[in-house]
Amino acid sequence: MIVIVKNGASREALKELTDRIEGQGLKIHMSQGESTTIMGLIGDVSRVDIDLLRSNSIVEAVRRISEPFKKANRKFHPADTVVEIPARDGAVKLGGGEFCLIAGPCSVESEEQILSIARSVKAAGAHLLRGGAFKPRTSPYAFQGLGTDGLQLLLKAKAETGLPIVTEIMSVDKLEFFSDVDVIQVGARNMQNFELLKELGKCQKPILLKRGLSSTIEEWLMSAEYILASGNPNVILCERGIRTFEHFTRNTLDISAIPVAKELSHLPIIVDPSHSAGYARFVAPLSMAAAAAGADGLIIEVHNDPTAALCDGAQCIKPDAFGELTGRLSGLLSVMGGKR
Amino acid sequence: MIVIVKNGASREALKELTDRIEGQGLKIHMSQGESTTIMGLIGDVSRVDIDLLRSNSIVEAVRRISEPFKKANRKFHPADTVVEIPARDGAVKLGGGEFCLIAGPCSVESEEQILSIARSVKAAGAHLLRGGAFKPRTSPYAFQGLGTDGLQLLLKAKAETGLPIVTEIMSVDKLEFFSDVDVIQVGARNMQNFELLKELGKCQKPILLKRGLSSTIEEWLMSAEYILASGNPNVILCERGIRTFEHFTRNTLDISAIPVAKELSHLPIIVDPSHSAGYARFVAPLSMAAAAAGADGLIIEVHNDPTAALCDGAQCIKPDAFGELTGRLSGLLSVMGGKR
Amino acid sequence: MIVIVKNGASREALKELTDRIEGQGLKIHMSQGESTTIMGLIGDVSRVDIDLLRSNSIVEAVRRISEPFKKANRKFHPADTVVEIPARDGAVKLGGGEFCLIAGPCSVESEEQILSIARSVKAAGAHLLRGGAFKPRTSPYAFQGLGTDGLQLLLKAKAETGLPIVTEIMSVDKLEFFSDVDVIQVGARNMQNFELLKELGKCQKPILLKRGLSSTIEEWLMSAEYILASGNPNVILCERGIRTFEHFTRNTLDISAIPVAKELSHLPIIVDPSHSAGYARFVAPLSMAAAAAGADGLIIEVHNDPTAALCDGAQCIKPDAFGELTGRLSGLLSVMGGKR
Amino acid sequence: MIVIVKNGASREALKELTDRIEGQGLKIHMSQGESTTIMGLIGDVSRVDIDLLRSNSIVEAVRRISEPFKKANRKFHPADTVVEIPARDGAVKLGGGEFCLIAGPCSVESEEQILSIARSVKAAGAHLLRGGAFKPRTSPYAFQGLGTDGLQLLLKAKAETGLPIVTEIMSVDKLEFFSDVDVIQVGARNMQNFELLKELGKCQKPILLKRGLSSTIEEWLMSAEYILASGNPNVILCERGIRTFEHFTRNTLDISAIPVAKELSHLPIIVDPSHSAGYARFVAPLSMAAAAAGADGLIIEVHNDPTAALCDGAQCIKPDAFGELTGRLSGLLSVMGGKR
Repeated sequence: MIVIVKNGASREALKELTDRIEGQGLKIHMSQGESTTIMGLIGDVSRVDIDLLRSNSIVEAVRRISEPFKKANRKFHPADTVVEIPARDGAVKLGGGEFCLIAGPCSVESEEQILSIARSVKAAGAHLLRGGAFKPRTSPYAFQGLGTDGLQLLLKAKAETGLPIVTEIMSVDKLEFFSDVDVIQVGARNMQNFELLKELGKCQKPILLKRGLSSTIEEWLMSAEYILASGNPNVILCERGIRTFEHFTRNTLDISAIPVAKELSHLPIIVDPSHSAGYARFVAPLSMAAAAAGADGLIIEVHNDPTAALCDGAQCIKPDAFGELTGRLSGLLSVMGGKR
Repeated sequence: MIVIVKNGASREALKELTDRIEGQGLKIHMSQGESTTIMGLIGDVSRVDIDLLRSNSIVEAVRRISEPFKKANRKFHPADTVVEIPARDGAVKLGGGEFCLIAGPCSVESEEQILSIARSVKAAGAHLLRGGAFKPRTSPYAFQGLGTDGLQLLLKAKAETGLPIVTEIMSVDKLEFFSDVDVIQVGARNMQNFELLKELGKCQKPILLKRGLSSTIEEWLMSAEYILASGNPNVILCERGIRTFEHFTRNTLDISAIPVAKELSHLPIIVDPSHSAGYARFVAPLSMAAAAAGADGLIIEVHNDPTAALCDGAQCIKPDAFGELTGRLSGLLSVMGGKR
Repeated sequence: MIVIVKNGASREALKELTDRIEGQGLKIHMSQGESTTIMGLIGDVSRVDIDLLRSNSIVEAVRRISEPFKKANRKFHPADTVVEIPARDGAVKLGGGEFCLIAGPCSVESEEQILSIARSVKAAGAHLLRGGAFKPRTSPYAFQGLGTDGLQLLLKAKAETGLPIVTEIMSVDKLEFFSDVDVIQVGARNMQNFELLKELGKCQKPILLKRGLSSTIEEWLMSAEYILASGNPNVILCERGIRTFEHFTRNTLDISAIPVAKELSHLPIIVDPSHSAGYARFVAPLSMAAAAAGADGLIIEVHNDPTAALCDGAQCIKPDAFGELTGRLSGLLSVMGGKR
Repeated sequence: MIVIVKNGASREALKELTDRIEGQGLKIHMSQGESTTIMGLIGDVSRVDIDLLRSNSIVEAVRRISEPFKKANRKFHPADTVVEIPARDGAVKLGGGEFCLIAGPCSVESEEQILSIARSVKAAGAHLLRGGAFKPRTSPYAFQGLGTDGLQLLLKAKAETGLPIVTEIMSVDKLEFFSDVDVIQVGARNMQNFELLKELGKCQKPILLKRGLSSTIEEWLMSAEYILASGNPNVILCERGIRTFEHFTRNTLDISAIPVAKELSHLPIIVDPSHSAGYARFVAPLSMAAAAAGADGLIIEVHNDPTAALCDGAQCIKPDAFGELTGRLSGLLSVMGGKR
């Protein structure tokens, strides 16, 4: 971290500032130019409060050199993290070269619905089953999910098909019901629900962390850091589209987030083309693009009767379209080779 | 709500669609043009899932005419809501023509700090005392607030000065500690923490609801609707700046949100110039602008020693600057007259 | 276009409004509901000024059903437009299933530089040579390009290699110098320089139209419409990344723009991964993603000595990296088959 | 400017880099830390190409300390610029404490229209008359303005009322027709039409430079710098709302831009509440806010018959509403005193 001191700062003010900084256990590399004094802070600057430094009356500017995330940082953990999800038919691996397909309905609606979709997506090659039991909805009057009943239905589908399940948590006080869930999803709106992140950091279950609607990649990795710093190393990043001015798609898939996150972090990253696009007909091209850009997997909304879906029907594809897509993805992945 | 049907839709598909809509208790006003069929849905459309309708294969487009919020809507509640906050020296009123000043530090740091600031801001004309005990921080390594100890210190300051207190809640499981808090704040990052909103809707305490960093006014009012629909009518809106591409300010104060929210809703709206600006020197002009645009009040960060503040020091003003500002605000409000 | 009339509009005001609309050559399909009157406007609504309608005191809302672009619209022109660029070794085709590679430096800097790069990219499979002679720079103090001298050097490179050339125009008064240029580029900052678009519509040269930094796809197609409406059908769309809050990339490639533009319009669309990414190391994954999403081609910055480039050196790749990339793209395109 | 060198850079690479920098006439203040080498560049860094530096293989990061604009920078020109616009009844001053009101229709439509509006706004206290003759419209099918005929009508209105006129230019080749125009406006879409800016820098007429729809304040000041650097010191900044995700207003007025621009630059800054709001009913509160925040003036759309306006009718206010607003503004300005 570099602190640029204003011209004409008094000796006393400078002394006070350096004392304050050294009091936090940091060393200062001082560089006195003709007109500018520059301090290079050396040590664990991830704990330094930049706003605090900036507010000092003799400070002109503060510039961070290194990223503020540590445990999520590839610099300190060069090897890819591979998250293993135990399953009846052998553990599913996420990261490290495997390509993982997660599929299922937006919401669990009934036993028949979830079982039928689970069977279809398994047959088409899915490795995990997704389905929402607790649903974050903009309107208090919209369908809010089946709650714990929905979780029970997901577990039935898991029991029958052997597919591990991924489902979203919305508040700490529901955590007790997630003991048999295989991957806990944190939705975009809760990406900075720090109390929830801290609690999830205390368990060892894989956490699928969606990127916030308008969050930067740095903020996203800082939220991953909350989970990692609390003790849980099993974090899966999920890019699901960001808010932009474009309205022909529900959100804008930030395809660049894949190579960027891969460079900055060792955590696996998957893509949600369904929420990114908002419309079923764009799911296939975005899925292909995500695979070509190096994603570790996809989470896709599949519904047997999209027009009757209780939420987000517009972006669900049917099981046969999912099957066709997995075929095309296999072709693409086969030519990507070791270059991914 | 208007549903535009695709050209060439079959009689059966149209029948299925109208049955589905009428099954939700709505009436349909059908308008058959030469090339377009338009359905006007009549009834309580706030419960209609637009995405669901859009996903129907014969639907070209769906357009909402009325707003999806109901209890927060001025159309159904023309008079200004006035939130009353009981206080030793007489209730503080927010909305309906009064101008309310909330001031205090970003975080409660110590008894001496909060007492001293509370005395200063009271002397300068503040009606309520703000101060954070639970702090949402982007980094897990940054100061997270004093927690319940901080709440105790706030209550001491209230006991001494008589100022009612405003402080932020971050998760449902801490609600029990807020019984003596006068106004509970929901921060920008939790604006769509729907589980929290539902719980806060079950009490009758005034809720200060900050707008999310990238939320639209409609989404903000939908979050207010969550609280209102759960039974609590005491919601105060707080505009605190939105994320834009501009970097000379921390956020961009959406000054237009004041007249827009006043038109759409009966709820009082205040402005947080400190988080909007991010720098102390811009707090005064933004405060003046907010008052001139018709805001019902301001929530301002005041610290006796900004450079030593444990968070957001850069945007805190000192007690004397706050005093000078309140004087200028009085002048401005005096000429605004009944026109506000 | 649908006009929703306010409740309680007087008979006279309604008459005045319908007269005004019919005076523009449109028919009105009137639909009188219990509480709402809806007018469906039939005819060429692309000339209707929506803002004007909205400002009418009895109008509640105006909703467009169809897109405001006509000549660029796939509905009225279902077949893909294929832009043909004459070349010594046979015309280069853009659109309709061909994949076109455009490569070259950001700026033309010297004869040696442009000739050497032209030879390299041709050897690696490029179909067209790009190179800037007139450069739009944020700072008046930055290198502004070699101007007409740069154009001459490009023509030399074309003469030697046979590669047709693509270069940017910045103002109408320079058009006379572009007579031997094969494809004229309109940069992102000039996407809504309507006077320039009108002039370019008067020639028949292919126009490569970059999307504006914060433009919607609709605005982009409206700018294409300016060129088409002036008589020039040879427009190539170029997605080059949009401005978002993300800072690890220079811009954010809107990968969804490819399938969206393909659906809305018949015009070919290519991608500029260099400006999207801003960093050379992200050019390859973005290029692969663009091809997988169905783009008709790529325009890539290639420089023999990026660190010495006079502009945008950070995002240039070297000729050998370009060669490796074209090999990987061939593999990917081979498995995409007819599905693109 | 600070250049942070990567760990382990070779002596030769470092030598090559320093030679390159010194070759541009800059001095280097070298600061060799244990693990980091930092170079402080001293001299006229406004000409340094940051991207070029960043692309150097041994450079970790480049951080600018000072702003890239020079002539527009208050640091080098502390006193407020006052732009004087000659007028029959005495020069109008913009900046330096005066408050200037510019009013008139979006477009000049007819002699009767512009004369009648000119008389009204003059009576209500306007100092300048605005009116568009060349109109930038998103659609090629929308009304494009009366062109040179419109300019003639504006001059008639000027001749009768004595109000100097402000009107927009859209391309260099029309400049010859602007010889009797008093203030030339550059619209938001042309803010980075650098060729136009350079030409306008060669005359001495006041230039009203609107901020681009998604431009940062720095980019805006860089565009002002283009005009200043070409020799014309008479630049007036105009904040007209930026694009955000909010849709209840046409754009979002960045009210903070006023104090920020005042701090960074000596140029006068006015506000366009009409384009910011997009709706007539929000023009008054935004105007009051702009004055309270310290703006040097306002440019407001006034039309005698907004529902018949040929463009942007929704945001025009009527002459009597303008008169009422000027009265309220006077009251507000009277209490602002020397504090503005």
